[in-house]
Amino acid sequence: MIKANPNFAKIQASYLFSDIARRVADFSKKNPDAKLIRMGIGDVTRALPSACVKAMAKATEEMGVDATFHGYGPDHGYGFLREAIAQNDFRSRGADISPDEIFISDGAKCDTGNFQELFAQDVRIAVPDPVYPVYVDTNVMAGRTGGNINGRYEGLIYLDSTAENGFVPDVPDTHADLIYLCFPNNPTGAVASADRLKKWVEYARENKALILFDAAYEAFIRDKDIPHSIYEIPGAREVAVEFRSFSKTAGFTGTRCGYTVVPADCRVFAENGSEIMLQPMWARRMSTKFNGVSYPVQRAAEAVYSEEGKEQTKMLVDGYLANAAVIRDKLRAKGFSPTGGDNSPYVWFDTGMDSWEFFDRLLNEAQVVVTPGSGFGRCGNGYARISAFNSMENVLEAMERIDRII
Amino acid sequence: MIKANPNFAKIQASYLFSDIARRVADFSKKNPDAKLIRMGIGDVTRALPSACVKAMAKATEEMGVDATFHGYGPDHGYGFLREAIAQNDFRSRGADISPDEIFISDGAKCDTGNFQELFAQDVRIAVPDPVYPVYVDTNVMAGRTGGNINGRYEGLIYLDSTAENGFVPDVPDTHADLIYLCFPNNPTGAVASADRLKKWVEYARENKALILFDAAYEAFIRDKDIPHSIYEIPGAREVAVEFRSFSKTAGFTGTRCGYTVVPADCRVFAENGSEIMLQPMWARRMSTKFNGVSYPVQRAAEAVYSEEGKEQTKMLVDGYLANAAVIRDKLRAKGFSPTGGDNSPYVWFDTGMDSWEFFDRLLNEAQVVVTPGSGFGRCGNGYARISAFNSMENVLEAMERIDRII
Repeated sequence: MIKANPNFAKIQASYLFSDIARRVADFSKKNPDAKLIRMGIGDVTRALPSACVKAMAKATEEMGVDATFHGYGPDHGYGFLREAIAQNDFRSRGADISPDEIFISDGAKCDTGNFQELFAQDVRIAVPDPVYPVYVDTNVMAGRTGGNINGRYEGLIYLDSTAENGFVPDVPDTHADLIYLCFPNNPTGAVASADRLKKWVEYARENKALILFDAAYEAFIRDKDIPHSIYEIPGAREVAVEFRSFSKTAGFTGTRCGYTVVPADCRVFAENGSEIMLQPMWARRMSTKFNGVSYPVQRAAEAVYSEEGKEQTKMLVDGYLANAAVIRDKLRAKGFSPTGGDNSPYVWFDTGMDSWEFFDRLLNEAQVVVTPGSGFGRCGNGYARISAFNSMENVLEAMERIDRII
Repeated sequence: MIKANPNFAKIQASYLFSDIARRVADFSKKNPDAKLIRMGIGDVTRALPSACVKAMAKATEEMGVDATFHGYGPDHGYGFLREAIAQNDFRSRGADISPDEIFISDGAKCDTGNFQELFAQDVRIAVPDPVYPVYVDTNVMAGRTGGNINGRYEGLIYLDSTAENGFVPDVPDTHADLIYLCFPNNPTGAVASADRLKKWVEYARENKALILFDAAYEAFIRDKDIPHSIYEIPGAREVAVEFRSFSKTAGFTGTRCGYTVVPADCRVFAENGSEIMLQPMWARRMSTKFNGVSYPVQRAAEAVYSEEGKEQTKMLVDGYLANAAVIRDKLRAKGFSPTGGDNSPYVWFDTGMDSWEFFDRLLNEAQVVVTPGSGFGRCGNGYARISAFNSMENVLEAMERIDRII
């Protein structure tokens, strides 16, 4: 008898964003003429930078000629892309990361979801709350938790991110083996200073723990003192893996490319306490279960690092940051106390009511889609996330509509 | 202490194709002027069909304009592609598969590797020998086997595919829960008749088992009596999942697209024996750990089903089949007894010596790269796989070189 993985029965009925999509689809069906403004799912709305389009078009042409055709690429990504990343995203900021420590993938969601495969079943896992659901759900599916009790899984350590700690949780007083961190944070928009990150690196070194650092929103950091990479913190190479994405940096949500950094000296441990290098494990996992990213997409990603590409992606991100500032300021003017919105495309605030009630009210009365904070965990109860991924015109209209009904 | 997944220590030192790549790289370094002919890794060599290039170029352009930009796609693939697949790959052959039973992915390797996540830890797994290493290695990593003893993992049921059974294993006399089948077979090139597949479907129904059917090489079938899909067999919908790929059909190895079919009535079981539908489990797995395939790539895949695309992909496959016929005939003329090569791009034969010895001899003396059969399992000992993915010119030269040294 072919038995199902029993852990799937533990996960909550639906993935947050599928749930939102369903409610929005229902509303649209009943109100076909309503002009919805979507500030929920965190999907970008503006065109791919022309530097990327040009590079992708050229690579697509190459694919049509035998002499320049590309079949299977190198297991962990093309050298041209890994070198551009190492130079521009790390070395230029003083973080010592080499091209062969970079693994190209089809996105940070896949990598943050898959990375847990490298660890033993009984590792103690700490996740922030509110949390990007992928960190939790993938560990639930893998059987590393108990059941869900009042919205929290037994066996996980939840790091409360609240107004009290500025939405940047401090190291726990208990022992954790694997720690998920995300800065700039999804969903709160909070950023972590070098000092706060230092404490986490120290904690990981002292506890023989590992940090999975999700830096998918790094491009939104404008404050000069905020680290873009965990590797700007001394000692992080041995205790941290970093995830990056072109999705929000360069509008790649529908193009699909990201990467993961696993430094050569990053270590985990065998049952007997001896060190095991993590990089060959990830290399083996990816060689076995993945076959690389489309060649034209890797060329498009490379173009992000051209002079033209850098300018265009900066403009793209600046545009979204301008939206975020509008959202934040309008919410403040209404008496809310939002966080995020600078150094981040997300604005997070206490709605003063139940999250889904707020969601439904905005959907039905203002035709504006936001993300209910409670979907990210208990600490998100009563909160909402508004995403700045839209045109300025839509953002202004959405904030005006919200203004009218609240 | 962050502990490593101990199962990674069980897997053999390297993934077969990475191992070959390393030996070839070593040879090339020592012999920079040697003109290598690669008939090893099974990578296609000819340009993407122009219908696909055109569609991909057009979609890339769309990505560069706000009004036609595509962000995150639908969770399980665009409707336009799922509908084209259902109609052309299934309904046109009398197999009742609907678009919402099709899940678009970035390739069959990923899907055949990831699908095991849906099952309990203690399912009894049967794999063919020789076997595509991904089926085995992914289950080893997941902890469903014991150690490797003389090339076989404890706890797996190996289905010997030998000259005696025409390389199509019969159903085992023991009980298996999960059965991996691949036809046209990689590496042997063998195909399974409807009668042989019927026995497997009956076995799965009787044993409450599930078949994972890898049909990545389906496009190479020319014999009218050979099923292209397991769903051409009555009763298969409840007991079989099918994997397909555009890699070999349309030269997508470097473009990356495939799909998996999970029929709505395909069932697995809970511990207590009650039925659980498999489709929502795969849907949930993919929503949680995957973010879809690049929009331009999905448009390129859709173009495979245009009139132009069908003609071009048929020509492409016909070209590789012509190569395969040459390889097979030349081997026969040398006194070997190859299988495959019709209905398949692979030719499989007993070399009369150790597989790696044959590999090294061909590499060093003829500068021809083949795949050592022993890399696919014990039943591959002494065998080699020659791939027809090349130009006719190269195939003729390779066979001439082989002719000279053997």
